[in-house]
Amino acid sequence: MTRVLLTGFEPFGGERVNPSWEAVQQVAAAPPDGLTVRIARLSCVFGTALDELRAAVGATAPDLVLCVGQAGGRSGLSVERVAVNVDDAAIADNAGEAPVDRPVVAGGPVAYFAALPVKACVAAARAAGVPASVSQTAGTYLCNHVFYGLMHLIATERPALRGGFVHIPYEPGQVLGRDAPSLPVELAATGLRAVLTAAAGRTGDIALAGGALH
Amino acid sequence: MTRVLLTGFEPFGGERVNPSWEAVQQVAAAPPDGLTVRIARLSCVFGTALDELRAAVGATAPDLVLCVGQAGGRSGLSVERVAVNVDDAAIADNAGEAPVDRPVVAGGPVAYFAALPVKACVAAARAAGVPASVSQTAGTYLCNHVFYGLMHLIATERPALRGGFVHIPYEPGQVLGRDAPSLPVELAATGLRAVLTAAAGRTGDIALAGGALH
Amino acid sequence: MTRVLLTGFEPFGGERVNPSWEAVQQVAAAPPDGLTVRIARLSCVFGTALDELRAAVGATAPDLVLCVGQAGGRSGLSVERVAVNVDDAAIADNAGEAPVDRPVVAGGPVAYFAALPVKACVAAARAAGVPASVSQTAGTYLCNHVFYGLMHLIATERPALRGGFVHIPYEPGQVLGRDAPSLPVELAATGLRAVLTAAAGRTGDIALAGGALH
Amino acid sequence: MTRVLLTGFEPFGGERVNPSWEAVQQVAAAPPDGLTVRIARLSCVFGTALDELRAAVGATAPDLVLCVGQAGGRSGLSVERVAVNVDDAAIADNAGEAPVDRPVVAGGPVAYFAALPVKACVAAARAAGVPASVSQTAGTYLCNHVFYGLMHLIATERPALRGGFVHIPYEPGQVLGRDAPSLPVELAATGLRAVLTAAAGRTGDIALAGGALH
Repeated sequence: MTRVLLTGFEPFGGERVNPSWEAVQQVAAAPPDGLTVRIARLSCVFGTALDELRAAVGATAPDLVLCVGQAGGRSGLSVERVAVNVDDAAIADNAGEAPVDRPVVAGGPVAYFAALPVKACVAAARAAGVPASVSQTAGTYLCNHVFYGLMHLIATERPALRGGFVHIPYEPGQVLGRDAPSLPVELAATGLRAVLTAAAGRTGDIALAGGALH
Repeated sequence: MTRVLLTGFEPFGGERVNPSWEAVQQVAAAPPDGLTVRIARLSCVFGTALDELRAAVGATAPDLVLCVGQAGGRSGLSVERVAVNVDDAAIADNAGEAPVDRPVVAGGPVAYFAALPVKACVAAARAAGVPASVSQTAGTYLCNHVFYGLMHLIATERPALRGGFVHIPYEPGQVLGRDAPSLPVELAATGLRAVLTAAAGRTGDIALAGGALH
Repeated sequence: MTRVLLTGFEPFGGERVNPSWEAVQQVAAAPPDGLTVRIARLSCVFGTALDELRAAVGATAPDLVLCVGQAGGRSGLSVERVAVNVDDAAIADNAGEAPVDRPVVAGGPVAYFAALPVKACVAAARAAGVPASVSQTAGTYLCNHVFYGLMHLIATERPALRGGFVHIPYEPGQVLGRDAPSLPVELAATGLRAVLTAAAGRTGDIALAGGALH
Repeated sequence: MTRVLLTGFEPFGGERVNPSWEAVQQVAAAPPDGLTVRIARLSCVFGTALDELRAAVGATAPDLVLCVGQAGGRSGLSVERVAVNVDDAAIADNAGEAPVDRPVVAGGPVAYFAALPVKACVAAARAAGVPASVSQTAGTYLCNHVFYGLMHLIATERPALRGGFVHIPYEPGQVLGRDAPSLPVELAATGLRAVLTAAAGRTGDIALAGGALH
C-alpha cells in the first residue's frame, strides 16, 4: 500500500467553501485501490500553512503528498509543474498578512519542479473523464507557498518522499450568479484519484506536449 | 399536467456529442412534478431544424416549448431573452450551408422576446444549484434560428403556446484537453428541470437585474 | 457633403474618461473627406440621453447619425447589428437610476436593425488597420438605450435618416494596472472615420460572414 | 552611458510580423536618454536563438540585456519574473522542432529570477501610459528558452550583466478580424523605453503587489 497525504485549504477571499477541502474529503472517503489516504486541512495563512503541512507529514509518514488548492477562474484540474520561491500576495491571507516579494524559504533555490510524473497525471485525469492540463505557474499566493514548502521539505529532509500540487476550479455553488467556470466536487475528486494512482504507479513521466507559448 | 416539448440538437462543429440532446433525454427520463415532457432532436441544418420543430409541436400539442442548444465557451445555463430575425453562419451547418445575413422568416419582425419569465427561470436554476444567467444574444446560428422560428410560430399560429431557449455549456468530456468551461449533463438537466417548473408555474416575471453593460 | 452627427458619452462606472467622447472629438477635428461632422456628448442617464440625442438631431439636421459608446472588455471596434427594446441596468446610471426590464419606448417594437451597412463598416475599419467585428448585442444599458431610441426616431419621424451604433474598447490609460484590452483613442478615431465613410457611401451591404455561434 | 542590448524575435506561428522586433527597432531609433541601444533579431528556433543571443552579447558588451517577445492574447506589457529550465513546445518552432520536457540547459538550476527590478519596471511602464503587469510565467516555448538562456549566461559567465524578459501583445494589424487584445507598436516601444530607464537606474526593487492568486 502506498501511503498518501492529501491536503486541502480552508476557504479564503470571501468564499464560504474551498472546493479543495471538499474534494480531498471525498477522496479519503473512497480512496483508489492500493492507496491509503490521510488528509489535512491547511490554513490560508502564510507560514502557518507550512507548519501544518510539516506536522501532517510527520504524523502520517507518507510516501506521496499531494496538496490541492482552489484556482478560481480555471476550467479543469491543473497539475502544477514548478514551485517558485516567492510570496507576493494580491489579497491578504486569513490572518490579514499580504507579503510582497518575500521568499518562501530564505536562501532556498529559486524553484523546484514537482516530484510527480506531471504529464502522466494529466493524462490519467483526462482518461477518467476530467478536464485537465499542465500549469506553468501556481501563482504567488498560498498555493505556491505550500507547494514550494513541500518541495523544499522533500529536497532538504525527506528525499524518498514524492509530491506536488494540483489546482481545481470553483465548484458550481460558488458561481451561481457569476460568469466563471466550475467543476463539481465529485468530478474533481475523480480526477484527484486518477492523479494519485498515476503518481503512485510510476516515477518516470510520459512524453505529452503540455507547454504554453507564453 | 402541463405538457412540455423539450428539444435538443444533434452534434455539430466536429463534436461527437451535443450536450443539449443528452440533457433533454435525462429530463424526459425524470421529469419535474406536474409536467409531462416529450422530446425531439433537431438537425443542425438551417430550415430543416424548423420543419422538425414544427412537426414536433404538431405531434405533441404542448403548452410550453423549451429549445436547448450548446454554447461552447459559456460557463452556466443561459436563458435567452431575445430571438433575432437573421441567419449569419460563422461555420457551415451539417448540410454544408452557411447563410450570411438572411432572414429566418422573410418579412418577419426584427426580433421576438422569449415567452418565458426569463428572470424567474434564472433564479430557479440558481436555487437548484446550477450556475445561470440571462443572455442578451442567442447568436446568429442554428440556436437563434430555431428560437426565432419557435417564437414566430407562437406569434402567428399558436398564441396560447409559451416558450423560449436555453443555452448550456460543453459537457466535461468535450473539453478534456481544452481550456474551456464545462457543466456535467446531470447538472444541466437539473437546471432545465428548474427552468421548466418556473416557466410552467407563472407568466409574469420577477424583478431581478440581469442586464449587460454592452 | 453628407452631414453627420456623431455622439459620445460622458464617463460612467467610476471611470474618469469615456473614450467614446474623446474619439468623436478627434473625428470632428479631422473629418473624412466629403463629410461634415457635428458632435454631441450624451449623459449617461436613462431618458436624458435620449432627450439630448433628439435635440442634437434637431439642431444639426444630419443625413447620418452614429452613436458611439465604451465597451470595457472588448478588443476592437464593434458595429452593432440590433437594438432591443429593453433597459436592464447592471449598475446605476449617473443619476442613480437602475431600471430593470423596462422598455426603452413603451409600445415600441421588440428590436430594430441598424440602418447602416454593418458588414461594409466592419470591412472598412479593418482596411484602415483597426480591429473590428459585428456585435450581436449592444447590451441593455445606456448604449442600447440610445441606439434603440435613435432607431425608433428614424422609424417614426425621420425615415430619410440613417444611423447606428459602434462600441469602442477602453483606451490604454483606463487599464494601466488592469488585465483588459485597450485601443488608443487615435486608432478608434481612425476606425470611426472609416465606418462613417463606408456608411455614407452606400446603402446596401456586402456579404461578409460576421455571425456568432451563440 | 548604459549600454543596452535589446532583442526581438522573427515571426512564428503563421504570423507575418512579430511586434517584438518592430518595437525594439523603434526603441533603437529613438533610445531613452542616457542609454545606447543595440538590437538583435533572434530566430524562433530552439538552440539557434540562444547561439544568436550569445553572439549578440559578445559583439555588443552590454550592461543590460532585455529580450522581448510576442504574447498573443495578453493585454499589456508583461515583465517576466522567472525563467524555468524546460522546453515544452505546444507548436513546432520555425525549424520544425517541438521538444517536450527537455531542459534548456542540461544540469542547470530549475529556474532563475530576472535580474531586473521587476516591479519598478512595471510601475515605470504604467507611468508612461502603457498597461503593464508582472507575469509569473514566460511559458515553455522560445521566449522562456531565451530568457532562461540569458539568465544562465549571466549566472555562469557574466556576473556583472543584468537582464530579463518582457512580453508584449499582438499589434493591431495582427488581429483585425480576431477577438484578441492588441497594443500598437509605438505604445509597446514607449513602454519598453520606460522599462529600460527603470532597469538602468536602479538595482533594488520597489514594494508593489504584483502577484497572482494561482
